[in-house]
Amino acid sequence: MLPVLEPQPADFTQPPAINPALAAQWLEAFLKDELIDGRGIERAVVGVSGGVDSAVTAFLCARALGPKNVFGIRMPYKHSSPGSLTDARLVTQALGINECTVEITAAADGYLQFEPDADARRRGNVLARTRMLVLFDQSAKLSALPVGTGNKTERLLGYFTWHADDSPPVNPIGDLYKSQVWKLAEYLGVPKPLIDKAPSADLEADQTDEGDLGITYAKADAILARILEGYTNDQLVERGFDRAEVEIVRGRLDSTHWKRHLPTTAMLSSTAINEFYLRPVDF
Amino acid sequence: MLPVLEPQPADFTQPPAINPALAAQWLEAFLKDELIDGRGIERAVVGVSGGVDSAVTAFLCARALGPKNVFGIRMPYKHSSPGSLTDARLVTQALGINECTVEITAAADGYLQFEPDADARRRGNVLARTRMLVLFDQSAKLSALPVGTGNKTERLLGYFTWHADDSPPVNPIGDLYKSQVWKLAEYLGVPKPLIDKAPSADLEADQTDEGDLGITYAKADAILARILEGYTNDQLVERGFDRAEVEIVRGRLDSTHWKRHLPTTAMLSSTAINEFYLRPVDF
Repeated sequence: MLPVLEPQPADFTQPPAINPALAAQWLEAFLKDELIDGRGIERAVVGVSGGVDSAVTAFLCARALGPKNVFGIRMPYKHSSPGSLTDARLVTQALGINECTVEITAAADGYLQFEPDADARRRGNVLARTRMLVLFDQSAKLSALPVGTGNKTERLLGYFTWHADDSPPVNPIGDLYKSQVWKLAEYLGVPKPLIDKAPSADLEADQTDEGDLGITYAKADAILARILEGYTNDQLVERGFDRAEVEIVRGRLDSTHWKRHLPTTAMLSSTAINEFYLRPVDF
Repeated sequence: MLPVLEPQPADFTQPPAINPALAAQWLEAFLKDELIDGRGIERAVVGVSGGVDSAVTAFLCARALGPKNVFGIRMPYKHSSPGSLTDARLVTQALGINECTVEITAAADGYLQFEPDADARRRGNVLARTRMLVLFDQSAKLSALPVGTGNKTERLLGYFTWHADDSPPVNPIGDLYKSQVWKLAEYLGVPKPLIDKAPSADLEADQTDEGDLGITYAKADAILARILEGYTNDQLVERGFDRAEVEIVRGRLDSTHWKRHLPTTAMLSSTAINEFYLRPVDF
């Protein structure tokens, strides 16, 4: 265990803790190292959704690069909640970073017009991938790097759109459970409304993450952390977790390993990329 | 070296060879294994561009899954060459696979309308990512898996759009150099016009890959294969390669390692995904 996370809490069923001051310091250094030292890029682009993950990412980028070098992009769709837009503005205003807004309705509907029967899941994936495309293009325009905002909980549960939420080349919060992101948000001074509201992908009205998942983040985080320590379902239930909740978490984890991998390529040689031919660094 | 590739040619400066019959047999088994046995998915979606890579991929999918289970999607943009569309049809007709056409102009221009000054590179990336979004959504609609078409040459040279050409979860030709793809195409019976024409991403008029890269595929493949065997630039020049061409290839290879990696995530724990917490399989 690296020193930026606290030891696991004494109560077995509590979510993992965090030392937010140390985490913030390390993540600031990580961003400087990856962007400036590693790539020679001084500017970051963050898709600010009005949620706490992108807010924390924007705060960390502002600390690492200075507010003038951070661009918060708001990418509303016609059905997006107006509250998301105003919450995103709370972030850009609190930090004094650059803000721009790119409406994705025409782009997404330019495709979805051919697919009127697409269900909510398909439509949500189209919106998420359209935002990816915009984020990367805005970064190219600004000679900046897109910075990722996916947290460890959603990455482990596979609760994200592949090649969308997980796509930026650098991600400061991908090893933090949602419970830890909230703690870090408080420490960094993220505006209260973003910390207090129910997390939502805002792809449908009244959608919440915890409703989609069927479990609270606090419970999911606690179960995930214990699964990664090696506990079986039976052992987790013996130690106080609810069996149905354990099965939700284990089921999502086991069925989504492919989302945490590179694509599978048929090997035909002794120099197959990412099989035999590996390079340890990415710059 | 696996048996599906021939030993390196005696002439040091020739591109790598291939045993097309063995390669076809192995790649058919690979696709059955990954789709049917591994994922329980019987259908494949291939973006057929009119180029030889997607043609070979479609031929392999038809062998592995049967033509009725393969969907060739044509995704023209308003500036796409009409020849690409008709060449793509040669593939779907030769195989008797399902064909559908999704025009991406409204989707791509729905975003590009806000970026009239975007250069050809940015516009090309927007088109490639729009096609990815369509490919994944069509796959979801058809209960199918998108199958990748990126070859080893373009993957090593970084000559592709990240989260676009490289995005499908399974790729049968990603360990084949372009020279080998051509040989395999002949063996499989890919229509002659697709084998004979100059490779192009068809993102701009008169664009060719070899013009973009500043080197022929035959030369690039030969140099790449020798670099991966460990030869230095000086050694390659001593053995008959042109120094300027060696430097083009080495430069592209060394500057694009990040495109062959998962995103870099800050590690804060002993269970960071893809660092300490690994799973050997993806299903």
